[in-house]
Amino acid sequence: MSYYIATTLNAPFDKAIQLTEAALKAEGFGIISRIDLQAAFKEKIGVDFRPYTILGACNPKLAHQALSVEDKVGTMLPCNVIVQASGDEEAEVAAIDPVASMQAIDNPQLKEAAAEVRERLVRVIAELEKSRAEA
Amino acid sequence: MSYYIATTLNAPFDKAIQLTEAALKAEGFGIISRIDLQAAFKEKIGVDFRPYTILGACNPKLAHQALSVEDKVGTMLPCNVIVQASGDEEAEVAAIDPVASMQAIDNPQLKEAAAEVRERLVRVIAELEKSRAEA
Repeated sequence: MSYYIATTLNAPFDKAIQLTEAALKAEGFGIISRIDLQAAFKEKIGVDFRPYTILGACNPKLAHQALSVEDKVGTMLPCNVIVQASGDEEAEVAAIDPVASMQAIDNPQLKEAAAEVRERLVRVIAELEKSRAEA
Repeated sequence: MSYYIATTLNAPFDKAIQLTEAALKAEGFGIISRIDLQAAFKEKIGVDFRPYTILGACNPKLAHQALSVEDKVGTMLPCNVIVQASGDEEAEVAAIDPVASMQAIDNPQLKEAAAEVRERLVRVIAELEKSRAEA
């Protein structure tokens, strides 16, 4: 079982981020954190890295539901969706599979929320693949 | 195996965040994201929630090492440390155990970096427990 759901977009990095954010919003996710790893690595350790951004995607209702049954699940929230450049006109998008990442949590009630989030993230990636096919 | 390492501080919520950030910095972690779930739930779904903040802790060298051997590990970065109020003068701090959360990733090389981060997070929590004993 893979721990992520991924696709590759025929789009430059910045455009791929825009498309990903739009697809996430359409599935009810807000973006509550954005981490620019390229900038962070340059600033903190002087290392050149490819464009790589971590988007923190959160559906507030599902996050609230998850926290109601597992108060420390915040250690695994939000659900991260990464966008990384794999060429000038190509970027890879990968969403965490919350069912896989939360397998370390032994709580049957949590699995419902995780499965619901997983379904939505699968649709996000499918939508991005569709936009690629249409491009 | 638990998926987190936790302790409870005899400190109000805001003070607990300060102590946690200081302990993280002492172990080489920068805070690269801060998510105020109480504010997010109020704003997005109108729900009252206890003070609950997700700190994204990142040791740039170890994150870079992890990404060099597993390019999609960013879906599980940064390492989250949550602080939640459990009373007016009490707050719980819980750090993700990266060895547990990353067990879904089948990559022996990654386990080294995860183990190193785990050790540091264990020391962060131990340090916070010590400060509690000294309070």
